[in-house]
Amino acid sequence: MSGAVETALDPQAQAEKRTAEMWAEDTASKAMGMELLDVGPGFARMRMPVREDMVNGHGTLHGGFTFAFADSVFAFAANSYDYQAVGVQCDITYHAPGRLGDVLIGIGREVTRAGRAGLYDVAVQREDGTLIASFRGNSRIVTPRAK
Amino acid sequence: MSGAVETALDPQAQAEKRTAEMWAEDTASKAMGMELLDVGPGFARMRMPVREDMVNGHGTLHGGFTFAFADSVFAFAANSYDYQAVGVQCDITYHAPGRLGDVLIGIGREVTRAGRAGLYDVAVQREDGTLIASFRGNSRIVTPRAK
Amino acid sequence: MSGAVETALDPQAQAEKRTAEMWAEDTASKAMGMELLDVGPGFARMRMPVREDMVNGHGTLHGGFTFAFADSVFAFAANSYDYQAVGVQCDITYHAPGRLGDVLIGIGREVTRAGRAGLYDVAVQREDGTLIASFRGNSRIVTPRAK
Amino acid sequence: MSGAVETALDPQAQAEKRTAEMWAEDTASKAMGMELLDVGPGFARMRMPVREDMVNGHGTLHGGFTFAFADSVFAFAANSYDYQAVGVQCDITYHAPGRLGDVLIGIGREVTRAGRAGLYDVAVQREDGTLIASFRGNSRIVTPRAK
Repeated sequence: MSGAVETALDPQAQAEKRTAEMWAEDTASKAMGMELLDVGPGFARMRMPVREDMVNGHGTLHGGFTFAFADSVFAFAANSYDYQAVGVQCDITYHAPGRLGDVLIGIGREVTRAGRAGLYDVAVQREDGTLIASFRGNSRIVTPRAK
Repeated sequence: MSGAVETALDPQAQAEKRTAEMWAEDTASKAMGMELLDVGPGFARMRMPVREDMVNGHGTLHGGFTFAFADSVFAFAANSYDYQAVGVQCDITYHAPGRLGDVLIGIGREVTRAGRAGLYDVAVQREDGTLIASFRGNSRIVTPRAK
Repeated sequence: MSGAVETALDPQAQAEKRTAEMWAEDTASKAMGMELLDVGPGFARMRMPVREDMVNGHGTLHGGFTFAFADSVFAFAANSYDYQAVGVQCDITYHAPGRLGDVLIGIGREVTRAGRAGLYDVAVQREDGTLIASFRGNSRIVTPRAK
Repeated sequence: MSGAVETALDPQAQAEKRTAEMWAEDTASKAMGMELLDVGPGFARMRMPVREDMVNGHGTLHGGFTFAFADSVFAFAANSYDYQAVGVQCDITYHAPGRLGDVLIGIGREVTRAGRAGLYDVAVQREDGTLIASFRGNSRIVTPRAK
């Protein structure tokens, strides 16, 4: 496929192409049982059921998995263009615990991009819309995409 | 066991007792292959080997597992007293990627406690001492320990 | 004024009443030249012209003032109900520098409230809408409002 | 002065030289009454008395000034080498309020540097050593220093 053809990709097609590439090699997100629901330029929506191996003896989700899920949503939202971006700094505020049996929905949206830097917010919810955690990630473009 | 006896626990014994209680129910940390190396008042040191199911196709550790590991170290450092504390807000800066085959060492130290709030720093390193990530966690006491 | 009457305040009236109380004693925000443009439940919009004493020799705004401005917007958004809340943890990402002559506009919105905790985002912009910085603040209710 | 001579500067001399350059143009830090106490490679210690125009009607320091002070300490610690670095993302946790009459002491230390990125922690204390706030700043080298 020629560079000229690739340049012609519209933003949505570009997002889907890049997402497919990322997903193909993202063994870890798949091992955690995540699924992609929706992608677009600067946007990603995913789901992850809370499993037995993710909770403590009381059925409460380990915060690390809440973060890991949000981090994947962030990665897909930040990598929906024609380059590779990595997370450099992230923070999370927990509002309510996830629980065994919950199916988490993560919605990632771009706040802004400036130069090589990007900022993304991810809302982690239960399926009923209850907000579980708010995640914010700073990304940085590391590899201008070769054609 | 009487309350009077418990009050008599010295800080190190208290830290070890509380850690044993936490560890017994922490299915998630065990499922990720973490081990406790050392605990003390406001302090915890742990290890976690990077496994195949934690990396992407290039052998790079998913940032979510770096965080999950740091988050567990934070939880044990923050729960080394006679009460239960939970993480409310955490942030992480990534310095270098973890890789398949690395054994991560996490060192958690208390910055300060004030009222019901605590602040903890966790350094995530490779076994050779290379710093992989710096984690900072804000905790909050939720349950004065009954007994 | 009786408690019964106060209970009857609608959310917008409550926000305006509480804001007026806060503003009356907020010497620091006034000394930095800030102005309130708009308030509502969980919401505040303010402005601050960048002054000579806020910039360095090259006319670039000290990041501390960008933060201080966002922090005030956060405080008013978080204190738009019938209680007193304080900031406990805040972070900021800088997208572009403020400059001498800029008039900053800060827009603060509530992400969520859960129990005594609240989370607020503040966008700091130039008057033309350019995003200068993104601020996120965690608040905590400290004094249930007596009356 | 020749480039050859400059290259020969030892780290401490380099830190002092770069600090003097920064300080000369830092109108804002001077306007807030800050003073430099000590600098070194990746290190800075400063002081700032809490003034009337920095507090609210109850004599409590506006959190924005606590941050602005920490931000300056961070800037000097991160700019103690032969290049220019800027803050890109910062966070702060407040432990206790500053008060009118307090003299704040800020101690900034480098956590690590990797490539163009640096991480710095700043402890803001009262003169008696009480910890007021913990600040963490991510910096980025923007301009390789010309000779």
